[in-house]
Amino acid sequence: MKAAVWYDQKDVRIEERAVKEVKDYDVKVKVAWSGICGTDLHEYEIGPILLPKETPNAYTGETTPIVLGHEFSGIVEEIGKNVTEFKKGDRVVVNPVTTRGNHASEIDRYYEFYSLGLHTDGSFAEFVVTNTENVVRVPEELPLDKAALTEPLSVSAQAVKEGEVKDGDTVAIFGCGPIGLFAIVAAKAAGAKEIYAFDLSDERLEKAKQVGATHVLNTRNEDAVAYLKNRHPEGVDASFEVAGVKPTFDSAISVTKPKGNVVVIAIHARNFEFNPVQLMLSGVKLSSSLGYEHETFKKSLDILMNKEIDVSPIMTKKIELDNLVEEGFHSLSNDLSQAKILVKLSGEV
Amino acid sequence: MKAAVWYDQKDVRIEERAVKEVKDYDVKVKVAWSGICGTDLHEYEIGPILLPKETPNAYTGETTPIVLGHEFSGIVEEIGKNVTEFKKGDRVVVNPVTTRGNHASEIDRYYEFYSLGLHTDGSFAEFVVTNTENVVRVPEELPLDKAALTEPLSVSAQAVKEGEVKDGDTVAIFGCGPIGLFAIVAAKAAGAKEIYAFDLSDERLEKAKQVGATHVLNTRNEDAVAYLKNRHPEGVDASFEVAGVKPTFDSAISVTKPKGNVVVIAIHARNFEFNPVQLMLSGVKLSSSLGYEHETFKKSLDILMNKEIDVSPIMTKKIELDNLVEEGFHSLSNDLSQAKILVKLSGEV
Repeated sequence: MKAAVWYDQKDVRIEERAVKEVKDYDVKVKVAWSGICGTDLHEYEIGPILLPKETPNAYTGETTPIVLGHEFSGIVEEIGKNVTEFKKGDRVVVNPVTTRGNHASEIDRYYEFYSLGLHTDGSFAEFVVTNTENVVRVPEELPLDKAALTEPLSVSAQAVKEGEVKDGDTVAIFGCGPIGLFAIVAAKAAGAKEIYAFDLSDERLEKAKQVGATHVLNTRNEDAVAYLKNRHPEGVDASFEVAGVKPTFDSAISVTKPKGNVVVIAIHARNFEFNPVQLMLSGVKLSSSLGYEHETFKKSLDILMNKEIDVSPIMTKKIELDNLVEEGFHSLSNDLSQAKILVKLSGEV
Repeated sequence: MKAAVWYDQKDVRIEERAVKEVKDYDVKVKVAWSGICGTDLHEYEIGPILLPKETPNAYTGETTPIVLGHEFSGIVEEIGKNVTEFKKGDRVVVNPVTTRGNHASEIDRYYEFYSLGLHTDGSFAEFVVTNTENVVRVPEELPLDKAALTEPLSVSAQAVKEGEVKDGDTVAIFGCGPIGLFAIVAAKAAGAKEIYAFDLSDERLEKAKQVGATHVLNTRNEDAVAYLKNRHPEGVDASFEVAGVKPTFDSAISVTKPKGNVVVIAIHARNFEFNPVQLMLSGVKLSSSLGYEHETFKKSLDILMNKEIDVSPIMTKKIELDNLVEEGFHSLSNDLSQAKILVKLSGEV
């Protein structure tokens, strides 16, 4: 099959790759659409970060070259001989993350996990072979291109869960890249009444509005803290740091009410100066989000089915696998108007 | 009356001071014992920190000179004409902190508060005049010297509440100064089954054991993280950072289980390098504790009555008011074996 294989930094090759063997409890999925994640881009530009280049991954035992891609939808092509829950032709999405299952689902991923597209072959390929437990059926009404958004939406939906967002809450979202946009979607689905979105790009803020932000502000022109203190002097219920820099980290803490949650979703590339006194003065609880529970993955499919929510502004481009580097990675790096780029594999809907 | 009055850094004078007027809803308390807090010491050594030297406190309108002291017990000497809940001779403790009461009790102190001994005259004096709402009766069985520990115990009890410590939990406490020792006491009262205490001083660790730590370790000789990972590879339920330095902050995060609470109680004098990725990898929730709710203050009196708990090792010395600087502040600075030093005012028990 044709696949995009990571060999090294700036060396991702579109080439022939063997399809993995379908074991007794496995499902072979013909990939329809596969989204490009920031992680894929980072592995291409500055990796290996999570990819096991020299030391084999402890769980899968694999090293690179590995096929990238972990946000995908597709159609069941073949099932292992012990699989009863799925049949050829089922429209599905796959939770790419497998954990050991030794702990409660809320925390199991913190101990050990592997992901398709990072620790074993992923979905920038014609086929993915995976264990049945991670496969979820897609409702008929949901097209497969939107279904490919289930995975990145899950990341944000988990963060919104960590932030304990409930009906009627006011939330602030710092950063409107794809995960920030999905955080708006997930917060809206959780019942947030006012959703403030901040970014430096008007194009991104326009998308933020389209997917559910009630207020947007370009922080190039105005200070987010002053803006919010004016409207919510006692603080918002929860805030989400999706930009990964100190100014948004500080702002998120400043605008949140005492005992409110500040959830860091962004990976911070740089350390910064910090003093926990900052937490004492604001009284916030600081947490983070990493991955998601399988339950959250399944609920994200429900969010995508929600008629009140339109995620289509987040899908900004569809490209061919052959053009992954040029029209995918390079485009995401250089064009702020891009959010989620989908790679067409079979392209079925 | 005789009182210890803060004039400036290194300038605390024992001198005559007028007793404040007893208004209609006030209670005048004859102070029995008043503990020295780290805050008092810091105001003496490097203050003003919280004391209003040039700008009057927004709530009380007062500036220094102000009488220090806020951890005290005593006996009602006089009541305002509208006070019905107390009578002369009642044995009491006083919550020194007054908030506006405009928010839920869990968060009201984060908006505005003032404290006796910082923003208006405190308890290193023969008498304190205060509003009735903050006065709590001391049970007959509890001697007034122990009752003077109610306030610092409340600080730790609030932190243990923020850390959501419940019956059977395993907790780690980094730093065994007075607030760390009281955190052990409060964790034990909350039902913690295993309480790990870490410090650099064997004398403090000995006290930690006496007040309820089940395991103690001098981290001069051995690494706290390795020690705990060996015993609790999946992490402890909650940890408390009561030392105020980066190594203990890092250790607390490392030893706590995903979704467990790391509560910073210590004031960090210095900023340090931080990256929120640290929170993602461990999965902990980071919070802090500042002051306490009035409910926590009242519950701390119950903890002091608990027959299973002996706080007396924390009371290391009793001194006269005249010797506050020499035998109080200087002793706390120079002698690690000191924990809570009580200043004798009337000395009644």
